[in-house]
Amino acid sequence: MAAGRPRSPAADEAILQATIELFDLHGYDGLSIETVAERAGVAKSTVYRRHAGKPELVLAAVRWVRSGDEPAPDTGAVRSDLVALATRLRAKFTTDDSSRVVAALVAAAAHHPDLAAAHQAFVAERRRLGLEVVHRAVERGELPTDTDAGLLLDLIGAPIFYRAFVSRDPLDDATLAALVDRALAAFA
Amino acid sequence: MAAGRPRSPAADEAILQATIELFDLHGYDGLSIETVAERAGVAKSTVYRRHAGKPELVLAAVRWVRSGDEPAPDTGAVRSDLVALATRLRAKFTTDDSSRVVAALVAAAAHHPDLAAAHQAFVAERRRLGLEVVHRAVERGELPTDTDAGLLLDLIGAPIFYRAFVSRDPLDDATLAALVDRALAAFA
Repeated sequence: MAAGRPRSPAADEAILQATIELFDLHGYDGLSIETVAERAGVAKSTVYRRHAGKPELVLAAVRWVRSGDEPAPDTGAVRSDLVALATRLRAKFTTDDSSRVVAALVAAAAHHPDLAAAHQAFVAERRRLGLEVVHRAVERGELPTDTDAGLLLDLIGAPIFYRAFVSRDPLDDATLAALVDRALAAFA
Repeated sequence: MAAGRPRSPAADEAILQATIELFDLHGYDGLSIETVAERAGVAKSTVYRRHAGKPELVLAAVRWVRSGDEPAPDTGAVRSDLVALATRLRAKFTTDDSSRVVAALVAAAAHHPDLAAAHQAFVAERRRLGLEVVHRAVERGELPTDTDAGLLLDLIGAPIFYRAFVSRDPLDDATLAALVDRALAAFA
């Protein structure tokens, strides 16, 4: 594992895959650059060359798992755009693998301010899809120009998160539609 | 620690205190009836006589930590009642000790269905305060009789949870008031 070797995409993937697996199995505290390198079959220096530290490594792995995400929906109407986003979010929060990683991130972020900061940046990045949908709706005149887009998106996304991870109340299609309708009514 | 000894409130408290401390330090997986008994200075059988198992023990400890909670606010108006509830919720979710326990519960519940069920029952129990506030508002004619109280409360409580644990977006008084106003507008 000489330092001069070019970066291999296979090693990139192996590192991220090992990180997600160890994070899911043992949580943030049970994961180290050393155990990731071992599981990925690379040298510790190979991990360090790619990731500044443990929080960056974990968030890079979360980003990688999510990389299949599509662009913002653009159906031509805010209601159907928001229902599409809500449906995607529900899938992420209720799929076993993905939801366990999210839950572990929340718990670890409560103990580790550096991870919390990296997590916060990741969440802000994901939120851009929702902001795009709201801004297009404002341009089309479907929502007032002074709409607080962040608050509107929280009225939909936060209850999906809360029901998936905390209250385990229903999250059927009718609930998602009701959330979108109430959020739009709140800002009408 | 003879089996015939009467239940001592001091032992009750020591067990719950030890449980919360170990849960916070090591999470659900790092906690056992054995380590709790050791930290509390009681026999394992003393723990087992009081708690059916690990999920019940952890939720009993969470309930005990929260036992100082006041009854539902009753200011005579739904807006100020909901602002009072929202303010309490923010305090719970942003106080270091309390918020770490909540975050650890969320993560552990994602791995352990028995803990998830106990957590769900606890959340439903806490929710009764909010339902009381909404039902009184309906009786006073401040909200329509067909108001979905659970959904209305989620429009306020879930964003507080989400901002405290996930996005770390602002949770100042103006945000809480905006959440309450939007939620009421959504159901007007």
